[in-house]
Order: sequence, then C-alpha cells, then structure tokens
Amino acid sequence: MVRRLPCEEEVLRQIRPGREEHNRIWEVACALVDAVDKSGVAKGMVVGSVARDTWITGDRDLDVFMLFDPALPRAELERRGMDLARKIAAQFGEGMREKYSEHPYINTTVRGLDVDLVPCYAVKSATGIQSAVDRTPFHTRYIREHIEGFVDDVLLMKQFAKAGGIYGSDHMTEGFAGYLCELLVIHYGGFTPLIEAAGSWHPGLVIDSAGHQAKEFDDPLVVIDPVDPKRNVAASLSMTRMFEFVELARGYAAHPRIAFFMPRRDPALTRERFCARLEARGTHLYALVFPTPRILPDVLVPQLRKSMEAIGGMLDRYGFTVSRMESCMEEEHCMLLFELLVRDLPPLKRHMGPNIWNTANVENFLEKYTAGVFSGPYIDDGRYYVEIPRKHTLAAEVLRSASPLKVSLGKHVKLAMQEGWTLYQGSDVWQDEFVPFLSSFFLKRSPLLRIRGEEAEPPFP
Amino acid sequence: MVRRLPCEEEVLRQIRPGREEHNRIWEVACALVDAVDKSGVAKGMVVGSVARDTWITGDRDLDVFMLFDPALPRAELERRGMDLARKIAAQFGEGMREKYSEHPYINTTVRGLDVDLVPCYAVKSATGIQSAVDRTPFHTRYIREHIEGFVDDVLLMKQFAKAGGIYGSDHMTEGFAGYLCELLVIHYGGFTPLIEAAGSWHPGLVIDSAGHQAKEFDDPLVVIDPVDPKRNVAASLSMTRMFEFVELARGYAAHPRIAFFMPRRDPALTRERFCARLEARGTHLYALVFPTPRILPDVLVPQLRKSMEAIGGMLDRYGFTVSRMESCMEEEHCMLLFELLVRDLPPLKRHMGPNIWNTANVENFLEKYTAGVFSGPYIDDGRYYVEIPRKHTLAAEVLRSASPLKVSLGKHVKLAMQEGWTLYQGSDVWQDEFVPFLSSFFLKRSPLLRIRGEEAEPPFP
Repeated sequence: MVRRLPCEEEVLRQIRPGREEHNRIWEVACALVDAVDKSGVAKGMVVGSVARDTWITGDRDLDVFMLFDPALPRAELERRGMDLARKIAAQFGEGMREKYSEHPYINTTVRGLDVDLVPCYAVKSATGIQSAVDRTPFHTRYIREHIEGFVDDVLLMKQFAKAGGIYGSDHMTEGFAGYLCELLVIHYGGFTPLIEAAGSWHPGLVIDSAGHQAKEFDDPLVVIDPVDPKRNVAASLSMTRMFEFVELARGYAAHPRIAFFMPRRDPALTRERFCARLEARGTHLYALVFPTPRILPDVLVPQLRKSMEAIGGMLDRYGFTVSRMESCMEEEHCMLLFELLVRDLPPLKRHMGPNIWNTANVENFLEKYTAGVFSGPYIDDGRYYVEIPRKHTLAAEVLRSASPLKVSLGKHVKLAMQEGWTLYQGSDVWQDEFVPFLSSFFLKRSPLLRIRGEEAEPPFP
Repeated sequence: MVRRLPCEEEVLRQIRPGREEHNRIWEVACALVDAVDKSGVAKGMVVGSVARDTWITGDRDLDVFMLFDPALPRAELERRGMDLARKIAAQFGEGMREKYSEHPYINTTVRGLDVDLVPCYAVKSATGIQSAVDRTPFHTRYIREHIEGFVDDVLLMKQFAKAGGIYGSDHMTEGFAGYLCELLVIHYGGFTPLIEAAGSWHPGLVIDSAGHQAKEFDDPLVVIDPVDPKRNVAASLSMTRMFEFVELARGYAAHPRIAFFMPRRDPALTRERFCARLEARGTHLYALVFPTPRILPDVLVPQLRKSMEAIGGMLDRYGFTVSRMESCMEEEHCMLLFELLVRDLPPLKRHMGPNIWNTANVENFLEKYTAGVFSGPYIDDGRYYVEIPRKHTLAAEVLRSASPLKVSLGKHVKLAMQEGWTLYQGSDVWQDEFVPFLSSFFLKRSPLLRIRGEEAEPPFP
C-alpha cells in the first residue's frame, strides 16, 4: 500500500474525477467510438488522459482517433477521415472546427467536452508509423498496460507540474507533456520516488525503461519512448523547465505542502510600481512591438525567441550589453523586450583587424583605415587594431535603424516587422496589452521562490 | 658582390664608423684588455658590437670582459673581479659606478666611451656556463667566425630596427637584441634576404642554423642559440615587436627608402590638443599615478604591465569595459592609464549563480539572495541567476577604493601603491611628466604608418 502524505491525500480528493464525471465522459467516448466502428471504414479508439484514467477533474479534453487501413494513400486517408469526422461531429457535437497540427482533424463540442476527432493509420507497430499521430494509439496502449497502481501518482505529478508552470510540451511552455509525466511516474515507481530522484538530476540524464535506445540525443533530458527506440519523449523539454522541476522537487521533498499543487497567478504591477522599479534598477528598457502574425502559436513562439536572440546578439555586437531579454506573444501584438546596461557609448570604437600574417586582409585593412581614425592602425600581439568612429552611439539608434531586419529573424516575424514596428523606450514600454508580461519580467522568480513568497509582490532594494 | 640599393649605400655612409673612430675605440679596447691580461689573475676580452665590428658610428658602448678560472668559488670571483675592475677603472677611466645585472660589474668612462668591465668565468663550452655573462664570450667568438661579408648587413639591420623603435631586448622595448640581429642576418645571408623572408613570418617560426635544438619554446619567434641548443635568443621578443618588424619589412620591400632608417621622435600634443582629442573620442580616462620604485627598470617594467593587466581585469569584472590600457615608467612617477567606454553603470547587476545540480552551492546561493534583490533568483538554462545591487556604479569608485591593492600587482608596485596613489580622471590625466606618453597614447600608429605619415600629428575624425 502506498503511503501518501496528508497534503497529497487532500490534493487527490480535489483533483480525482468522481464516479459521475467518469461515467459522463466515458458515455460520450463510447458513443463516438461506436459511431466510428459502425462507419465500417475505420476503427474508433479513445486516446489521451481519458483512455489512461489520468485526467484531472474538470479537464474537458477528449481525443477520439479513427484508425484507417495503412494501405490507403495519404490523400485518401485525409479525405475519408475528414468526411467521417465531419459526419460524427455533425451527429453528436455543437459546432465544428477544422484544425491542423501535422494533419487535419476536426474539433467539436459534445456535452460540454472539447472533442478532437483525428484520422490516423492503424499500423502494426509503432516503428512503422507514417506520421506522429499514428504513434498515439501505441502510447495509450503502453500506458494502459503499465499504469496499474500509479493512477493517483500521475494525477499528483500532473497537478504538481501544472502548479509549477512547467506542464505542457507546447513551444511556449517547453515543459512536461502528459505522456512524459506518466512515463516518469511508471519508471520511478510512483510520485514520491520520482520527486526524490529528480532532486539529483543532471543534464544529459537518459531514462530508457525498455532498454532499447537506438539513437543518441543531446537534449537535457532523454526519455526513450518505450514504443519507439529512436524517439526522445522529452525532446521539447527545455533545460530551464527541467531544472525548475528539479528545484520544485527538492523544495517539496524538504517541506511538502499543499502550496506545491496550487496554481497561482503572477502578481501584476501597476504602471506606477513598474516605473518605481525601473528607476531603482537604473537600466534601459527597449521594446519592439509589432502585430502578431496569424499563424499557429507553436510556429510563432520559436520564431519570436530566435528573432529576440538575433536582435540581442546585434545589440551586443554594437557594444550594448543586454542584461536580460524576453519575448511575448499576445492576441494583438508581440513584444521583444531588451533590458540594457548602457543607453549610449562614446564615439570611439576599438575595432579588431586581421592577423599580420594574413597578407591579403592586411592590405585591404590598411587601405580602408588610412584616414578618419582616432588612433591606429597599430599592432597588438600579432594583430592590427584601429580606433574608429562608432556607427551608432545610442542603443535606440541601432533598434530604430533598418538593422533589426538584417539579422536572422523568424520568417513570419520578419514579414510582420517589414510592415513596421514600434520602438518603446524606458517606462513607455508599459503597454496595456503586456501588463502581465512586463510585471513578470521584473518580478521574475524561480517557481520554488514563488511558492515560498506565495502571491506577494517581492520587495526590491 | 652584394647589390645594395642607393638608399642603403647612403645609410651605410652615414652609420659606418670611419677609420679614425675605429682606431680610437680599438686603442682604448686594447689598452684595457692588456691591463686585464697583465694583472695575471684573468684574461681580457672585448665583446659586444665593437668586437664584432658591428657598431654604428657614434655608439659609445665598449664591453670588456675579464675571464677568470672557473675553479674559483662564486664569491671569490666577485671579490677578485670587482677589485680588478675597480683598479682598471681607476687607472683609465673617469668616475666609476658599481652596477648589477645578474652579477656586479663596473661602469666607467674612458676617453668618452661608456665602458663596462665585467668579471666572468672562462668556461670551456657555452653549455657549461655558470651564469649568463659566461655565455657572452662565446657569442662574440661565434659572430666573429661567421660575420665575414655581413658587417654592412648587420649595420643596416640594426639601424632599421632602431629607426622602427624595435631595437633592444630590454623589458621596456621587448625588441630585437644586437646578437639576434646578427644571427638573423647571417642565417638569411644578408639584410635584403632577411627583409624578404620576414614579410611572411608566422608566429611560432623556429630558426635553428646549427640544427641542434634541444628544447621546445612557445615564444612567437624561436632562434636557437648556435652556442647553446637549449636557449632561445629571441625569448624576450614580444609578438607585437616581432610583427612590427614584419610590417616594416613588407613596407620596405614594397617601397624601399631612407625614411626606414631615420629615427623619429613621436610628435607631442599640447594640453589643448590632447583635450580636443579626448572630447572627440568621448571615452573616459583614468590614470593611477605613484612614485617610481627605486629598482632596475628591467625589473619594474614587467611589474607595471602585470599590475596594469590585473587592474584592467578588475575593471572588466566590475562591468567597466577597458578599451585600451598602457603603462609608463618615468623618472619620478609611474602611470597606469585606462581608457574606458563607460564611466557609470546602473544599480542593477545580473549575477550568475551555481548550476542547479551543484547542490551545496545552490543552498548557499538561495540563502544568500533571499532579500534585497531586484529580480530572481531565477533559473535560466540550468543555472541560477539573480539581479542584485551593483557594488560600484562608478568606475572611479572601483579605482578609488582599496580594490586595486587586492588584485595581483607586481611586488614593488604594490609596495609603492600601499604608500598611496593619485587617481586622475578625464583631462586631468594630463600631467607634465607624462606628456610624451600621453601624446603617444592618442597618436598611436604602427611603425610603418608612422614612417608614411612622417612626424606629423595624424588628424582625427
């Protein structure tokens, strides 16, 4: 018998779905699977947390897969699959939305549940899949076969990750997917052993329960998929989220309490308090704001990060040290936010030239810098240097010029920025749409410290 | 027959000692050697450029070595050697100064010549020497045996190096010693082939004419001593001086003219022009000034550099980027000069904490930064960071505090600075004693560009 802490029992009482909720969801699920089966063209299958009994009360997601003959050509699968999904959605659901991840599927609402109807191939083994969706049924089967005795543990782990802000494998979160939570609990034999082990995780840790790893990964955490020896289930987990979990696990092991399972909102600043903090920091804020491109968030978010890194790198190259930068996607606009230590630099810039033994470059260099220099060219340790006028003495000039468009931006970010962007400086970065983001930027604390400090706004020097 | 360029013939006419000068020096030299021989306790020997016929007209240095029986104990050698040197100086010279390099010797003036009387051991082979001075007679013998046909080439090389400011192996210059010039000319077979070869020198070049190298060196240029297989004659040549010679050699090969042999003084700035340049640069100058310790320049100069590097490194660690730094030893005072891009930084400093998996450090870190922070501690890529108040927001504070005494200063620099130093900022660094140094700091150009620009003060943007 597993020994649970009282706080864990309390959490489970709150998050474990009741019999009534269970029956209601399964009623809908069975009706949909029946309808797929009766179509005669595909087999229905419930997947996801409902199928595994690992959903948290109040979750409204129900995934029903429609497994087709793998001999069907891809176009035919899509046509027949979408036809069937539409028919079922029309019969059972309210409304219908065509969606796309790797492939098209239908989203509808059935008795308050958010239902996805997803066509896929009924392949024989997970290594014979034609696309990622074909793998899902194998995950469901694997977890169903191994979940016995660990259902409550998975619920605790999921709730723990949700409350810590590290649940979800989407690009915004880069956290722990539901399947990953399940595998970790099963691998370590429960929530408590997982928490204990995680406290001493190192980057590069490899977990391969099936002992069949067939590919190397250099992700921070490698969890080999038990149904596919060449797949890392934790591929989308970032180093940061991984170690936020490590920190939370240590904090919980040292002092377990219900706060670790309670989701909390970030406190929000007022404009006034934001300005007071900015003045105390004495740093220089610059925000590039442009309309949010109309693409999937999972496509846009990595582009925002890439663009931010590229522009931050450019600022550094121009001599403006970036202390911290973050990006944010909101409904209407995106923001790339840079906090700098200096706003202006002197007209003089020390420029490194070629090695003296690099004859061709030396000639060009000496020809280029014959006049208009402060000092040099001179030789230092086998290299030429010259002190020349700096192109931009103000960070704002760098960001206001066309330069940001010249660095390696994400494709859709570039398209959006080519239409124009707004540069906000200092306290003007305080834009209504970004209040939660800007508040979090200044109030940033690791998840454990947020739990310790509860929801209070931390003081500052 | 060597083909000389007209400009080289002209230079040789100017620098080759005449018959009369030759006879006058040798008269003095022979008289001194005779006196040593007649003492009965040592053998006299003329060494240095006089012995090799490679002195430049007007040079006043005459080195007479007194070779003692190697069986004598060191203390006895010094006692007898100094006695004899004093006796000879009293007999022939005007005045007498006791000096020390590795060992004591006597310096005096004989008929306008600056004469060193140096006791050493008459060892059988250069590898059996007891101290560096014992090696000198072997150098003289080697060069005398190989100099035939290259006397004029050596004169040209020496004058070329002198005019370029790269002649001398003292720590201030870190340039080409006379013996090194002689070996290079002999190795390449003359001045012209040396110039041609030097244009394509790379760092790490090894020249081993005797083919007997018995030790590895990682100096920029390695010239194995023909009389000692374990010695690099170019050990004290810096990478900078080596490549200044390379640059000059290329410039001369491309456009040979007499300017390459004409020593030139650095132009000097006035205070007014210095200030105008400083304002245009927009940089922030800081000078630490303290009394010059009363030790040998060759001991002090490396200490000044080391101290400057240490203090420059400290400024960088505090976030104040050093654009350029140089040090200067004058009669009364020394100056460590730092040119910075920023004079002040915001109160906020981003501080990197330990890796999360470094458990012991993590605990200390989180305990230390519970309060009084701007943001954090937060996790980024497996590490903790925290944004805390900066200790010094002004570069001047860093230099005014006791911090400079805490870094790794040269011993005598530290002793001098412990007595107190003065910090000058901006145009106040303009101190009369350092006018040539400060002028050169701003007017800095490689030797070739100085020749091209002649003595003019270069314009600035």
